[in-house]
Amino acid sequence: MKFVLAPDSFKESMTAKKAALAMEKGILAVFPDAECRIVPMADGGEGTVDSLVSMTNGEIIRTEVLGPLGEIVIAEYGLLGGCQTAVIEMASASGLELIKPVDRNPFLTTTYGTGELIKHALDKGASRILIGIGGSATNDGGVGMLQALGASFKDAMGNELLHGGGSLDQLVSIDLSGLDERLKYVHIDVACDVTNPLIGKNGASAIFGPQKGATPEMVKKLDQNLFRYAEIIKQELGKDVAYLEGAGAAGGLGAGLMAFLNARLKKGVDLVIEYTRLEDQVKDADYVFTGEGSIDGQTLFGKTPYGVAMVAKKHSVPVVAFAGRIGNGVEPLYDNGFTAIIGILKGVTSLEEALNLGEENLAFAVENTCRVLKQSRRDGI
Amino acid sequence: MKFVLAPDSFKESMTAKKAALAMEKGILAVFPDAECRIVPMADGGEGTVDSLVSMTNGEIIRTEVLGPLGEIVIAEYGLLGGCQTAVIEMASASGLELIKPVDRNPFLTTTYGTGELIKHALDKGASRILIGIGGSATNDGGVGMLQALGASFKDAMGNELLHGGGSLDQLVSIDLSGLDERLKYVHIDVACDVTNPLIGKNGASAIFGPQKGATPEMVKKLDQNLFRYAEIIKQELGKDVAYLEGAGAAGGLGAGLMAFLNARLKKGVDLVIEYTRLEDQVKDADYVFTGEGSIDGQTLFGKTPYGVAMVAKKHSVPVVAFAGRIGNGVEPLYDNGFTAIIGILKGVTSLEEALNLGEENLAFAVENTCRVLKQSRRDGI
Repeated sequence: MKFVLAPDSFKESMTAKKAALAMEKGILAVFPDAECRIVPMADGGEGTVDSLVSMTNGEIIRTEVLGPLGEIVIAEYGLLGGCQTAVIEMASASGLELIKPVDRNPFLTTTYGTGELIKHALDKGASRILIGIGGSATNDGGVGMLQALGASFKDAMGNELLHGGGSLDQLVSIDLSGLDERLKYVHIDVACDVTNPLIGKNGASAIFGPQKGATPEMVKKLDQNLFRYAEIIKQELGKDVAYLEGAGAAGGLGAGLMAFLNARLKKGVDLVIEYTRLEDQVKDADYVFTGEGSIDGQTLFGKTPYGVAMVAKKHSVPVVAFAGRIGNGVEPLYDNGFTAIIGILKGVTSLEEALNLGEENLAFAVENTCRVLKQSRRDGI
Repeated sequence: MKFVLAPDSFKESMTAKKAALAMEKGILAVFPDAECRIVPMADGGEGTVDSLVSMTNGEIIRTEVLGPLGEIVIAEYGLLGGCQTAVIEMASASGLELIKPVDRNPFLTTTYGTGELIKHALDKGASRILIGIGGSATNDGGVGMLQALGASFKDAMGNELLHGGGSLDQLVSIDLSGLDERLKYVHIDVACDVTNPLIGKNGASAIFGPQKGATPEMVKKLDQNLFRYAEIIKQELGKDVAYLEGAGAAGGLGAGLMAFLNARLKKGVDLVIEYTRLEDQVKDADYVFTGEGSIDGQTLFGKTPYGVAMVAKKHSVPVVAFAGRIGNGVEPLYDNGFTAIIGILKGVTSLEEALNLGEENLAFAVENTCRVLKQSRRDGI
């Protein structure tokens, strides 16, 4: 029997890899000869680097970069094993979590560090880069990132713009002559689950500005600035990114990546599925086991187990999903590739204990699910 | 497909019948044409009357009897449908829960009310009686019960003994001439999971006396009294019950039932299995689903799901057990008829909510277990 074990991480409890290993333990207790293919998943957000690096026996690279407020931070990204591919989470260099709530200010925050990570990956020989852009502290349209990569954004006096989304009102011209040559030959995928445009009432500033520290007045100004930015991109590059789906992701970093680096935006889980070649693993499997800390009606909207289930469904491989919490509205999942959804808790417990016992509980639930499967096999029914 | 649904009650959450109906709901969601045989189980303790009455569409009989301290209480017992069988829980008439902790005193408490329930059942035409003897407040060797049924226990002056285990030191002779004639023709089964002898350091007084309110001095006296009682039984009936297994159950009620009423003591769950004819239901079933509020290593020692699993194992029918709490040490269950043990909780929750959502959670877990079964069927593996 062949099992593909493709869980996401169980947040605050276990990484995707640890979850997959717990599943393997449960399976082998029942089917000692089963083949278990460990394919730790992620959704392009937190844990994506870990999952892909561990899947490919790659390495984690740590390097100093400029943080969102210009301070030095130690950021990390992944170099996958056996291929010239880097995986970057922008939040590692330019994330909201790097700044104390009182200091959050999208007028000032920059994506410069993210650009430095890209440059570092290019130096390491990467020809393909996956960038997860969740959790950003920024609203600079990706200008900081591009500056780090050699592009120049100038004001009327010909001076380089200062960092932050608040400076974009000074933007007059863009000079790409210094942009790193290697970017012409690199393929950039952006894991992006939001579809917001760059500007307007559903744009980056209006929707995500407030959680990054913007007051209503700041939101208005930031939106005007991104409008200006889009206009100048249109003039100078002939590209209209203002209302592209996902252009507003990560404070307009989506727009910057698409306009300047020809990046392709895709749902995070779909990119992870592509990078892990999940489909190759799934197509001749007997069962796919997936899972996540929580599964509910929202799982249908692009969560990892759903992406995994779509791949499995294509090849008619049954999927059993395991979760620490099963919320409301899961019934539609049964029509979308999910054979069954199994809770892993063994009893009433505190959240802390549930998180601590995640691996043990998951292994137990998987083992007992396999016992049910095995019984059916024995029955020949 | 034929399913036998034979759970115990999930204590404080749902009766065995409600649990079985929740299981049925889960099964029918996946196998709409399945035959579900509802066989609510019990272990001879609390819930036994309910389970057997609901299984047979019998009736609950309520009647006034003498409570353990001589007060009037409303006790109830079950008359099963379609057969001349009564099911009595002694705790309903003579139980510890009927007395406030401060008033608990095994010198005074009597099983008289239990005898009245037996008499009432005889009046209703019962020819077979199952008596559950858990939860007693008494230490009178069953003397009160026998008095209610017409036996006479006399002191040196020829006077009837007063109620309670404290009066047995006055016992000199037993007169069975007034004992209800119908008892000769009635078959009495006693659901008894304890194996303690009547007297000695593992006897009724020493082991169970303290929880019924006996001080160490009282325990000593009560034990002496039961010793005297056993001696007189030996003299007058030629039966030696002092060290019979289970003679010490319910403050010696076990001894009284065996010595005077030829009762048969058996494990509660085994009697319930016998009375429900579980084996007839199981032998051509495809699956047996059982369950209980909590399943752990102790389940092997005579708990309901274990009894159910033993019956199913005899006929090689797989058993899946469901539980609100899965404790430590369940592994040996896999070698004892249990195919799998499935937790029903959907996430971290309070005990109160878990108890409130028992039926919903059980139905969900059963449904998803059936989905796994069905998938295997579809695979033909």
